[in-house]
Amino acid sequence: MAKQLAKSFNCPTEFTLSVLGGKWKTVILCYLKQQPCRYSDLRRLLPALSEKMLTERLRDLTLKGLVIHTRDSKTRSSTYSLTAKGRSLGDLLHHIYDWGRLHAKDFDVQVGEPLTRLNEERTAS
Amino acid sequence: MAKQLAKSFNCPTEFTLSVLGGKWKTVILCYLKQQPCRYSDLRRLLPALSEKMLTERLRDLTLKGLVIHTRDSKTRSSTYSLTAKGRSLGDLLHHIYDWGRLHAKDFDVQVGEPLTRLNEERTAS
Repeated sequence: MAKQLAKSFNCPTEFTLSVLGGKWKTVILCYLKQQPCRYSDLRRLLPALSEKMLTERLRDLTLKGLVIHTRDSKTRSSTYSLTAKGRSLGDLLHHIYDWGRLHAKDFDVQVGEPLTRLNEERTAS
Repeated sequence: MAKQLAKSFNCPTEFTLSVLGGKWKTVILCYLKQQPCRYSDLRRLLPALSEKMLTERLRDLTLKGLVIHTRDSKTRSSTYSLTAKGRSLGDLLHHIYDWGRLHAKDFDVQVGEPLTRLNEERTAS
């Protein structure tokens, strides 16, 4: 079950980080900020996460009210997207993603862009 | 010793979070984004951190090249501030802090503002 959010925090930063909820949940939120994703998309975007780990994190984000899970009655495919509460994090999520994209070269590191690659593959097929 | 930054990341978000380096380092960076702080200020701003934990995190941030430590030769007081690399995180740190400040009420939580309080006490004395 999702950890309950504390009722008070020493400073705004601690509260924000508690809502984001750690590395993998923040990565998921950053993807969902860019576009709604199917469960199978998220599996491809987060290859380091096992199915169990991804499912748990999605459940936590849903229980926290940041993510909503809808199922298409025809195709039966599951889609995850941000709720209004989740979208309130939009600008911040954009900055987290974009800082990494723009500053990787300053730290001499390579960063992939799996969502861009996934969309390119989809357009090409 | 500070963990070496990996040379490649699956996505920009993972890289950004790795540079920020976890909850307490992000909290420290958010304070230093607002103003240079003495070691004693940081001790007051982060009451949940022991002296050892704070010292370790400051050393990591310094080794990563995000924070610089200067010592006034007259007063012998230590001041920590962001380097140019640290300042490249400025907008992002501002968003992390500000989102928490602005959205606490939507989540029905209280957040303190210890840096504002510290500065008010200093002005009053």
